[in-house]
Amino acid sequence: MNYEMIKAATARLDGHVRHTPLLSSPFLDEIAGRRVLVKAECLQHTGSFKFRGAWSALSALDPPVRSRGVLAYSSGNHAQGVAHAAWLHGVAATIIMPSDAPRLKIANTRALGAEVVLYDRANESREEIGAALARERGLTLIKPYDEPQVIAGQGSVGLEIAEEAHDLGITEAEVLVCCGGGGLTSGIALALEERAPGFRVRPVEPEGFDDTARSLRSGERESNPAQAGSLCDAILTPAPGEITFPIVKRLCGPGLAVSDDEALRAMALAFARLKLVAEPGGAVALAAALFRAAELQSDHVIVTVSGGNVDADLFARALEAHAP
Amino acid sequence: MNYEMIKAATARLDGHVRHTPLLSSPFLDEIAGRRVLVKAECLQHTGSFKFRGAWSALSALDPPVRSRGVLAYSSGNHAQGVAHAAWLHGVAATIIMPSDAPRLKIANTRALGAEVVLYDRANESREEIGAALARERGLTLIKPYDEPQVIAGQGSVGLEIAEEAHDLGITEAEVLVCCGGGGLTSGIALALEERAPGFRVRPVEPEGFDDTARSLRSGERESNPAQAGSLCDAILTPAPGEITFPIVKRLCGPGLAVSDDEALRAMALAFARLKLVAEPGGAVALAAALFRAAELQSDHVIVTVSGGNVDADLFARALEAHAP
Repeated sequence: MNYEMIKAATARLDGHVRHTPLLSSPFLDEIAGRRVLVKAECLQHTGSFKFRGAWSALSALDPPVRSRGVLAYSSGNHAQGVAHAAWLHGVAATIIMPSDAPRLKIANTRALGAEVVLYDRANESREEIGAALARERGLTLIKPYDEPQVIAGQGSVGLEIAEEAHDLGITEAEVLVCCGGGGLTSGIALALEERAPGFRVRPVEPEGFDDTARSLRSGERESNPAQAGSLCDAILTPAPGEITFPIVKRLCGPGLAVSDDEALRAMALAFARLKLVAEPGGAVALAAALFRAAELQSDHVIVTVSGGNVDADLFARALEAHAP
Repeated sequence: MNYEMIKAATARLDGHVRHTPLLSSPFLDEIAGRRVLVKAECLQHTGSFKFRGAWSALSALDPPVRSRGVLAYSSGNHAQGVAHAAWLHGVAATIIMPSDAPRLKIANTRALGAEVVLYDRANESREEIGAALARERGLTLIKPYDEPQVIAGQGSVGLEIAEEAHDLGITEAEVLVCCGGGGLTSGIALALEERAPGFRVRPVEPEGFDDTARSLRSGERESNPAQAGSLCDAILTPAPGEITFPIVKRLCGPGLAVSDDEALRAMALAFARLKLVAEPGGAVALAAALFRAAELQSDHVIVTVSGGNVDADLFARALEAHAP
């Protein structure tokens, strides 16, 4: 896994993924006490950065392999990214989702052209179902983060950040990245190591699910005690990835963690000041920029808003509680 | 008022306004029955395209005149655009607002660096107050739409649309523009006449406030019977402008009108499918693309989402009623 793979993936992504804007607001700068630049990856196709990694992985497959179709396990953003990238490649996607996943996400994934296979979380194993389907149909599994071509695709966000920051004359910055398994974090860090060496990536996680921050402190991959219990569903992962963590460990600064309530406050501010829809897991980096000023050093903070796939009820709740 | 002024304004705007993205979603294409491309001008500085016209007008003033400061009447998007553009130019802005304007809009305009002068709608004339202040302080009035340099600034949206559509290989399209006084509509139409002659601009207004559509039918500037009574406050104007209307009449196709409820539905779909915050008046063009299919002809429809300055309560109401 290296910078050259990110460059190659970015070339494959050209014309297929959106170059998302880098936004800002004087109101956010005021709260943060420094300049805050927001990489609006919620505006990416399918509403999250996951489409980049999915496109990268699909486009890297040998055509005869790809034509047999792809498989993913996911109830969320990765599912939609893989479904849409597969449809655009003209190949079948099978997505294994828990039968109690939100109906809207199941409907969206189907509408994006995927075959959704539902399983019963309590009594069935998605891995067994997936392995059987892969064997029967010759499908290729696209992992959500611990897969070099997926990391390479997410790294294209880092190249865009480097280019945009360069145009603004910014040579030193902390780059706060919403972190689950570390695919986006490690991809951005590898891209910036090469293209913006004065930038430091810092992972941001939900409080209580800060496996990456704890792993950075101990030097070993640490697990989260729980698998659920935060609103930030998109970035709740059991532990840092086997491939992603060594990169994160080598390149990233200390992790940060924010509460669900701070994520909701950041969502309300993204609504009011940026006109963006962020989901809780996609808002943690912005929350850290706004509410963890004492833990930051640089005059410029660049944050990812990594996704916007949030139910209307929860979004309305964030506005009701926190809109300025 | 001509294309050369738009080119000159766009050069002055370079590096100061955002080049906003052109977004799309297969879910919206499905509803519309054609390809829908969304120019996300709600992501512009201050949350609406008005910043472009304000910057254009400010930057066109002679420096000694500009340094004495500028004046605007507005309770909405034009106020924030002028306030921020003036602050960035290092000159004073005085904004005359009704004392019953939403407190948040007053607060935002002040926070953007303007002096807000409140007046009592019932007993005072904003024109008299403005004229007195302009005389006393030597301020220059920046009109919201019937001003060539403002139109020239809004026209920069048209140049961006032409460029983006060209990159996508689109040579024929209807361009639906949210229309109040016609500054954005006439500016885009002039830009596209030169740069994308296969495109036709069509103004979109709220039902009951379709002065431009009626004026296009009669060939004369028609007025609206009422001044209030739609949620689309940003685009309620008494009649088409004296400068804007001849341009709109020469270049634009038949107008369209949508209901407040359709604007709210479009807001909910922009939330779910584009991750954008649109205000009612900024969502009418998208509403027309989605819900007026029979009145449209072309395979490609390009719509402006012209602003996103909406109160949280109203936004939550749109989601509750209409989110998919």
